[in-house]
Amino acid sequence: MHMRLPWVKPRFMVTWGKIFLKVHPLPPFEEVNGEKMTQAALTYAQSHKSRFVDQLGEFVAIPSVSTDPERFGDVRRAGEWVVDQLRGLGLKNIQLFPPDTHPIIYAENLDAGPDAPTALIYGHYDVQPAEPLEKWSSAPFSPTIRGENMIARGASDMKGQVAATLFAVESVLKTSGKLPINVKFMIEGEEEIGSPHLSAFIASHRDLIASDFCVNTDTGMLSPTQPTIVYALRGLAYFELRVHGPKQDLHSGLFGGAVHNPAQALCELIAGMHDANGRVTLPGFYDKVRALDVEERAELARLPIASDFIETRTGVPKLWGEPEFTPVERLGARPTLEVNGLYSGFIGTGAKTVLPAYSMAKISCRLVPEQDSSEIRGQLEAYLKANAPETIRWEIDEFVHGNPSISDRNSRWVQAMMQAQETAWGVRPIFRREGGSVPVVTALQSIAGIESINIGVGLPDDNQHGPDEKLHLPSFHKLIESLIRFFDLLAK
Amino acid sequence: MHMRLPWVKPRFMVTWGKIFLKVHPLPPFEEVNGEKMTQAALTYAQSHKSRFVDQLGEFVAIPSVSTDPERFGDVRRAGEWVVDQLRGLGLKNIQLFPPDTHPIIYAENLDAGPDAPTALIYGHYDVQPAEPLEKWSSAPFSPTIRGENMIARGASDMKGQVAATLFAVESVLKTSGKLPINVKFMIEGEEEIGSPHLSAFIASHRDLIASDFCVNTDTGMLSPTQPTIVYALRGLAYFELRVHGPKQDLHSGLFGGAVHNPAQALCELIAGMHDANGRVTLPGFYDKVRALDVEERAELARLPIASDFIETRTGVPKLWGEPEFTPVERLGARPTLEVNGLYSGFIGTGAKTVLPAYSMAKISCRLVPEQDSSEIRGQLEAYLKANAPETIRWEIDEFVHGNPSISDRNSRWVQAMMQAQETAWGVRPIFRREGGSVPVVTALQSIAGIESINIGVGLPDDNQHGPDEKLHLPSFHKLIESLIRFFDLLAK
Repeated sequence: MHMRLPWVKPRFMVTWGKIFLKVHPLPPFEEVNGEKMTQAALTYAQSHKSRFVDQLGEFVAIPSVSTDPERFGDVRRAGEWVVDQLRGLGLKNIQLFPPDTHPIIYAENLDAGPDAPTALIYGHYDVQPAEPLEKWSSAPFSPTIRGENMIARGASDMKGQVAATLFAVESVLKTSGKLPINVKFMIEGEEEIGSPHLSAFIASHRDLIASDFCVNTDTGMLSPTQPTIVYALRGLAYFELRVHGPKQDLHSGLFGGAVHNPAQALCELIAGMHDANGRVTLPGFYDKVRALDVEERAELARLPIASDFIETRTGVPKLWGEPEFTPVERLGARPTLEVNGLYSGFIGTGAKTVLPAYSMAKISCRLVPEQDSSEIRGQLEAYLKANAPETIRWEIDEFVHGNPSISDRNSRWVQAMMQAQETAWGVRPIFRREGGSVPVVTALQSIAGIESINIGVGLPDDNQHGPDEKLHLPSFHKLIESLIRFFDLLAK
Repeated sequence: MHMRLPWVKPRFMVTWGKIFLKVHPLPPFEEVNGEKMTQAALTYAQSHKSRFVDQLGEFVAIPSVSTDPERFGDVRRAGEWVVDQLRGLGLKNIQLFPPDTHPIIYAENLDAGPDAPTALIYGHYDVQPAEPLEKWSSAPFSPTIRGENMIARGASDMKGQVAATLFAVESVLKTSGKLPINVKFMIEGEEEIGSPHLSAFIASHRDLIASDFCVNTDTGMLSPTQPTIVYALRGLAYFELRVHGPKQDLHSGLFGGAVHNPAQALCELIAGMHDANGRVTLPGFYDKVRALDVEERAELARLPIASDFIETRTGVPKLWGEPEFTPVERLGARPTLEVNGLYSGFIGTGAKTVLPAYSMAKISCRLVPEQDSSEIRGQLEAYLKANAPETIRWEIDEFVHGNPSISDRNSRWVQAMMQAQETAWGVRPIFRREGGSVPVVTALQSIAGIESINIGVGLPDDNQHGPDEKLHLPSFHKLIESLIRFFDLLAK
């Protein structure tokens, strides 16, 4: 029976809300040994490189900007494109959640059977806005190949990587008819607006998405020649602190000297939140921080992120932070407290001699295992109660908190991914604890107990949220290859 | 010869640029003793109270908002009103400087002769904007009498006080034909936009304005029953400090912990600018501060500005500042360093995890005698050089600096004013060092060597820059009376 090839324009576009009852059955598979299967799939991927790129071009040409209400239909169209691919690959049980917004797409292939491992493949089909358009050298939704790169909004974040997972599955299915492991896809359309429905979906569909691990390609690698496995992400707790002084702005000449300036008081409170060694002073902040063991420090030391690398990338004159930890350790394995915003009084051009009525700071903490993000507010309040003077009033709001996540680097899945990447790139991958927070990784771990292997091929200079976003195509193809090898390694 | 009464609508409006050659000669004066002169002038002022109020109403009805380009003609019209009064009083040598903007009006009556003292009378005929109009209970430029107050923009700041000086001079001239001292008027129209031409005018017309002292009614009194002589004003030096870290905003998760956050670094620098006792730590900041002597501290202690007064007026939970000085001393006799504005990163609603590229603070110092405002920048730079870490870059801009001013409380002029006020109000006036900076007072002292006696009748609740600005009319009349008595006391 002929399987409709996924790069053939579908005759009937899938529409949301439609129930997918008709599944195209796959051709009968023949039993082959793993090595032969893999080789056939790799050959298939190799020979379809240009078609993969063309097909990715179709996907990125859909301006699925989820932050823009006028692009609502385009975001749904990008989701339809994904569903169409999944249908084309013969995946089963395709469902859309929740049906009234940009849905979370679920699909599965469980043909490997209950004894084989199950991988949850996460991705998102929405993209960042393209503005400012005038800074693009080609139209953001007209993908352009320049050298080894595809230039388009969403190519690197993360349609290229979503497509790579589909093409890896296709390569295996097309050559052996059967995947060596079970796969479940969970592809959302609201990541760039903070995934407002994802946690609830995970909580209410634990059985549906139950898996041994998650493959998340929404992270990055350090360079095209350095595959990277991100095994830990920091958590987050985000606050707004407001300090109130006089009931209204005062004339600084008439009252300055007798009234505690709320801008100054805020600065004093913030200054006290770190000690001279850059250590956060909130009471109890480090109590649950998991110590780095010797082996992990040695592994992190392999990362090519020396001081001068960070200095060059950021332009700061000199690095800062806890002297007893390396910059890489501080970035990934140590919690932080950052001021994200400051406001008080007059900030226009020139001079105005106001003694401000209040001041405000946005303050967030990046958290590492085993810190509990719900405890940070109490620690901040304890600090303020102990340190805020009686001359001012203060209040805090908490906007968001999420726990850090970490995966077992010695698990079967991580070891298989390491081997698959080493073969594909010819270089042993680097294990990295990344400083950012990926909410889906946190949610999967905390709600469904699923650890993530984060293996994206986004590059530091891909300009993911800026103009001329690019995807490095050789890395895109290597991601397909490494996924094919990974599936096979897990089957053995 | 009949003198044209100043409240009669002039038949020919003065137009700017016109040279005032025709001076209305005054009636010949008769020699009378001082007491009799004063009594006649006081009786005159008493019997013309309602006409003075009507005439002030004419003045405040002109919407002379100097900040508003559309009110350009109205500001000039208010100046024409002043010139017309001065002409009506027979003042000589009326001149306008500079002629192409809202002019500084000069006029003189030197009939008392070279052996008599000379007073320079300062005022301004421009006013603050009236917006927000909807917060006024009557139209801001339709003066309304409510109880003891006139409600109108500019009534208290300071057309009422300019008119009072004119009416005091009129009362004496109309009853004795001659002033016992020489007077020179210097009335500007750009005070509310920072007096951009005044310093240059003072510098280039030292001989013209040469006087023994200046009477400045652009300050206030503590209550209607407490006449106040402000004999010292603080100077000002105003800066913008910018702290630069990374070359662009960074992702706080990816770089937080290894890069010194410029918002945090700014807070640390600002926090260090005061010690635990509220003392400014800039090197050399207090070196030239004139110590308060026992007598001055006793005099300042008479001021009814206790802690609870300032707490009530400002709404702060508790006062702040150098514990070895009283709040009144801190407000007037001690220098300060204030944060007038703070900005960094994300200050919108909600959360954004940015590690900001830079931060900014507006910082100003209020200065007291004998601090030199031109030295503060160097002190701030020395502080920053000593305290700024190598992990950030900083720069400062200076917007403005002006020296503090102080008048000799034991001078003949100040003593005469004290006596005149005590008689008019029946209460000994309070001597006050005020925390604000009045640029014309500084300019007159530093450029022309003229000390000012600051004796306005603005009240703390007059709402000078807000809606429903009011002038307390009994205080307005007492100001006229006290000026009549003051002139006479100096003649003896």
